[in-house]
Amino acid sequence: MGKEEVVEGSVWVPEPALRAFTSAVFRKLGVPTRDARVTTDVLVTADLRGIGSHGVARLPRYVTGIRNGTITQGYSSRIVKQTRTTAVIDGGNGLGQVVGRKGMELAIAKARRASVGFVAVRNSNHYGIAGYYSMIALKAGMIGISMTNAAPLVVPTFGRISVLGTNPISVAVPAGREGPFILDMATSVVPRGSIEVYDRQGKRMPLGWAVDASGHATEDPQTVLESLARRLGGGILPLGGEGEEFSGHKGYGLALLVDILCGVLPGAAFGLDVYADEDSANVGHFFGAIDVRAFRPIREFKRDMDKLVRMLRESPKAAGHDRIYVHGEKSAAMEKERKAKGIPLGPKVADSLKKIGADMGVPWIV
Amino acid sequence: MGKEEVVEGSVWVPEPALRAFTSAVFRKLGVPTRDARVTTDVLVTADLRGIGSHGVARLPRYVTGIRNGTITQGYSSRIVKQTRTTAVIDGGNGLGQVVGRKGMELAIAKARRASVGFVAVRNSNHYGIAGYYSMIALKAGMIGISMTNAAPLVVPTFGRISVLGTNPISVAVPAGREGPFILDMATSVVPRGSIEVYDRQGKRMPLGWAVDASGHATEDPQTVLESLARRLGGGILPLGGEGEEFSGHKGYGLALLVDILCGVLPGAAFGLDVYADEDSANVGHFFGAIDVRAFRPIREFKRDMDKLVRMLRESPKAAGHDRIYVHGEKSAAMEKERKAKGIPLGPKVADSLKKIGADMGVPWIV
Repeated sequence: MGKEEVVEGSVWVPEPALRAFTSAVFRKLGVPTRDARVTTDVLVTADLRGIGSHGVARLPRYVTGIRNGTITQGYSSRIVKQTRTTAVIDGGNGLGQVVGRKGMELAIAKARRASVGFVAVRNSNHYGIAGYYSMIALKAGMIGISMTNAAPLVVPTFGRISVLGTNPISVAVPAGREGPFILDMATSVVPRGSIEVYDRQGKRMPLGWAVDASGHATEDPQTVLESLARRLGGGILPLGGEGEEFSGHKGYGLALLVDILCGVLPGAAFGLDVYADEDSANVGHFFGAIDVRAFRPIREFKRDMDKLVRMLRESPKAAGHDRIYVHGEKSAAMEKERKAKGIPLGPKVADSLKKIGADMGVPWIV
Repeated sequence: MGKEEVVEGSVWVPEPALRAFTSAVFRKLGVPTRDARVTTDVLVTADLRGIGSHGVARLPRYVTGIRNGTITQGYSSRIVKQTRTTAVIDGGNGLGQVVGRKGMELAIAKARRASVGFVAVRNSNHYGIAGYYSMIALKAGMIGISMTNAAPLVVPTFGRISVLGTNPISVAVPAGREGPFILDMATSVVPRGSIEVYDRQGKRMPLGWAVDASGHATEDPQTVLESLARRLGGGILPLGGEGEEFSGHKGYGLALLVDILCGVLPGAAFGLDVYADEDSANVGHFFGAIDVRAFRPIREFKRDMDKLVRMLRESPKAAGHDRIYVHGEKSAAMEKERKAKGIPLGPKVADSLKKIGADMGVPWIV
């Protein structure tokens, strides 16, 4: 839901070609083949599902990170503490996608034996879309949970400086004939990308998305982005908006909960300290897997999931609307379409990728 | 946060006297002493913490429920399925508080042995405030999780009929010198009680709390409450409000997630079916306990929790505000005050309790 529009002047790139290009770039940087493939998979999956802000558009940032050493190359993550049901992994300051996938797979492996598994990761980096990891649990007939903390962008209720990240929560739940339920949400009203879209278009944004340096809601996207970039104050509002009238304190609470589970629990950075150290972002993640079969036969569970999904979908629509969605439905439809038709890259993104390709001797796709 | 105001003409009742009265009422109805004490504890804790809508004001509903048999008396809950880390409990259609406490304690007991424990409950009733149960984990040095589904009151994004409950989520996390983090939030913008307050005062409510029968936001509390009561359509909006502009689909997703974990997972009712059967509400709950020590020494964890809490509290305030709160802080302060000064009961609530006392031969407090 709330997926971005296709930018004018986009080129449509076939998925396999985009994967090959992206993976080749990572390999040129010395990333092992398997890790390059996983990282590429996370980025391209975001593009396929219509979350372009977390797709290959971010490749330049990863390239810069690896080149200047803020993302450690030749790192190795390791399990530093574990029980039958839990583990803490130190990511060794490597790519968040690689340790992220490892963390989620470990949670699932534990849940296969012990019905539930929880893994917290410290000393990691940006891991892409939270939903990538939770979805891995679906094939195992499990409920998947994925969260990450992030650089401070979100202002706590009654504050005027961003202390928390947009700290997303994703939970994926298998269904039967219906598609799975895949919640994948920033705990802020909007991600930074939505404010950037309004800024590029020179438009006022809805009042209630972000606050200026005084801590009050503003419609001016440029002020917010500039203040954030220069750490002058202001920032994005938590889900629920400004103050308590529409329960902004609830979104603030969810963002804080994510920071506790991802930052405090594994001993990663939290709050203002995420990305505060130039050499090590020390981002933290939290993964969980819950085996449905420990509670109910999977067929019964899936049958009732289908029933709930249909109950919602078939419910009467608000005037002016003809469809009620269930989470993950829009992204799944887009993924299907883009696997067939290709992935649209805006002109700026395409140019930046071509430049990387030229720099590194990786031939561009088109 | 967002706690209710004290109603004009309230009487202030000492906590122990209110407990004794409430417990005596339950015992008169044949509820065993221990169960009466637990149920009373949940209700009075809500009043102490400033959530009067879920406090003794609800006693008449429980009395009616037990009397007319919609809440089974002389029931017994039983574990119907379990592993080392998980369990499903059938509540036997008894008091939600009794099986709720049992479920949370079982989750904690499992977490003591296996680091994590999750318990889902079916065939239960209204269990009071979600935060009561999550807080039980604090004493054990654990993170506590508590959720429940509820009667349909919340309209899905782009819908015009309530399909989901206000489905609260509570997570409690221990801290050190600072108070614990206690998130306890309905996944709707506001609880029904807030709309009732505006209705009683004959005021327009903020646009974005609820929709009318057409599915669009309205400021008229009376229309919403009447339509809901008569199942004509309309209802409360999910956290984030109407449509997707302020991410109402995220609140809708959280409400749906709670219904999946509480309804679908244990085989309880979900969606429109909660409270649909006159004889059995079949409410479901979901409880979890995560032992911090499986991840980090508890002292380190608490030290960092304190650091995060102070980082937020000491952050610069928005113009016109002088305090940033952390979740659970306001309620803890109120609990302390009300333990000393007593609990305010509005005239209507006091009258209804007196009437129950007179009916049942339980002497009223004052």
